[in-house]
Amino acid sequence: MNLRIIATGGTFDKHYDPLTGTLSFRDSVLPAALQRARVTQEGAQACVFEALLALDSLDMQDTHRQQVLQSCQRAAEHHIVVVHGTDTMRETAAILGSAQLDKTIVLTGAMVPYLIDDSDAFFNLGFACAAAQLAKPGVYIAMNGQLFGWDNVKKNRELGRFEALR
Amino acid sequence: MNLRIIATGGTFDKHYDPLTGTLSFRDSVLPAALQRARVTQEGAQACVFEALLALDSLDMQDTHRQQVLQSCQRAAEHHIVVVHGTDTMRETAAILGSAQLDKTIVLTGAMVPYLIDDSDAFFNLGFACAAAQLAKPGVYIAMNGQLFGWDNVKKNRELGRFEALR
Amino acid sequence: MNLRIIATGGTFDKHYDPLTGTLSFRDSVLPAALQRARVTQEGAQACVFEALLALDSLDMQDTHRQQVLQSCQRAAEHHIVVVHGTDTMRETAAILGSAQLDKTIVLTGAMVPYLIDDSDAFFNLGFACAAAQLAKPGVYIAMNGQLFGWDNVKKNRELGRFEALR
Amino acid sequence: MNLRIIATGGTFDKHYDPLTGTLSFRDSVLPAALQRARVTQEGAQACVFEALLALDSLDMQDTHRQQVLQSCQRAAEHHIVVVHGTDTMRETAAILGSAQLDKTIVLTGAMVPYLIDDSDAFFNLGFACAAAQLAKPGVYIAMNGQLFGWDNVKKNRELGRFEALR
Repeated sequence: MNLRIIATGGTFDKHYDPLTGTLSFRDSVLPAALQRARVTQEGAQACVFEALLALDSLDMQDTHRQQVLQSCQRAAEHHIVVVHGTDTMRETAAILGSAQLDKTIVLTGAMVPYLIDDSDAFFNLGFACAAAQLAKPGVYIAMNGQLFGWDNVKKNRELGRFEALR
Repeated sequence: MNLRIIATGGTFDKHYDPLTGTLSFRDSVLPAALQRARVTQEGAQACVFEALLALDSLDMQDTHRQQVLQSCQRAAEHHIVVVHGTDTMRETAAILGSAQLDKTIVLTGAMVPYLIDDSDAFFNLGFACAAAQLAKPGVYIAMNGQLFGWDNVKKNRELGRFEALR
Repeated sequence: MNLRIIATGGTFDKHYDPLTGTLSFRDSVLPAALQRARVTQEGAQACVFEALLALDSLDMQDTHRQQVLQSCQRAAEHHIVVVHGTDTMRETAAILGSAQLDKTIVLTGAMVPYLIDDSDAFFNLGFACAAAQLAKPGVYIAMNGQLFGWDNVKKNRELGRFEALR
Repeated sequence: MNLRIIATGGTFDKHYDPLTGTLSFRDSVLPAALQRARVTQEGAQACVFEALLALDSLDMQDTHRQQVLQSCQRAAEHHIVVVHGTDTMRETAAILGSAQLDKTIVLTGAMVPYLIDDSDAFFNLGFACAAAQLAKPGVYIAMNGQLFGWDNVKKNRELGRFEALR
């Protein structure tokens, strides 16, 4: 499969903290999600998981985006999924896109956390895992069942979905 | 998006019947799953859903497979996901593959029903929706995070996963 | 059954809002939860549901607690469950307790919202429904599988549970 | 709390087996359910869990019912919840009831397994835990939000609920 999944935080990975009553980060849900997807079951052609960051994407600074870029550059794999907050997913995608790596990098996230009822997260992860294996080298955003080029997408905040610019 | 999702039943779509204590079919879970995935939200580039069959794939006869083929042939869409039981997914894929339609057809299913805890169904659906949009025309099986050509796959029943033949 | 369930909001009833990324209130989850519990199925000895308030219990003012008291006073039922935020559950219980109604009133809530993975809400609701039917008239708090008199309980905020004072 | 929870199997505790496509028994879900209910959290007044049997209640023989009786007799606790299949819950309750132990024993179960979407199991467990602490010594069945004496209850198989005989 030759696939790397990089966690950076975002809505996808938020947990509810019963002591504070807020959503925050703990260990990523991704290892359990990949096992549930039967992607990482023992003996199967496993994908590699990397817990890079655990940030709300509104808290992401340039230095964090450089860390994501470096992870993608360093990766032995040519097919990469980056799980990222939706609010600045486009900004990180632009940094990755400008670097013109010879890899297929798909950013995805969720409108509702994986651990909350009616979440889109698990679907999006599946969609991104396929897109990262099948799309030609480049940087993409995968949300609401669509794949967008990194320079042709915006988040429609009123409707809670991603749309092509043109 | 130009995508058609065809339900045929299978483990993916089984419901628990509290009166009999068995798993059986009711209305497909797919319309709700696609809405949860935010694929079919109002105003978005919607995909088309078709409730064709509701069968355990062990109960599928040649006549049923011909119905699936006819649905694929008749479809205006060139990108098709067929949700199917895993036990004879390969047989249906072979019928569709032999017909050599100029469409991308991806069969998927689940090892655990969508409505049961820890199900792989929603991930598989996302994976198949991406593969149907991105893979070149042909017939494929999408399971456990991998895409297989219809003539290069078998179900490993001991391990509960799909594997390439070669 | 002769049971009334009064919703006032609290963690139990919080929904995730995908547009703001915060937890807030929409229609109460309680009607669906009671149906899932098979309490309100058609033809069964139904309980009565009352959507009174939808507040974080930290936002509850004396006037709101008086509304809860009035609902309990007015109710034809002698067995009442009040679903309430945990932070000021004790304060509302004290108001109800001081009123010395000849009814069994059980306040309950949740440490994790009903709609979030691993929530205690549904268990607590079941526990409270039994306690409201079985305990002698008085005002109680039902949390973490225990029933406390309204004047013998505190929330341990460090451990996230309710404890008896003595 | 002084409460014992005895698992005997039943619909409540069924798991989906992805290799056979059937519902069967593995380790009981009850320890995780009790932790989720925050009943057994560290430092709390814990209840005792006993994994006695893992049977479909249609497969329960007299010898199994004697085992349940012996567990109840031997238990140091005076408040006991027995998680049991619904089909012969009444038969086991009759055996326990005839023994006239000076304990409060509440049998409960589920119409839908704990691990399946929309299950009533977790509510029923909460209801039974309260009833076992609050009802006077005797043997009861707790289902669909009601508590029935062991000799005044039947399962209505058409409607999927328990009803009083008189």
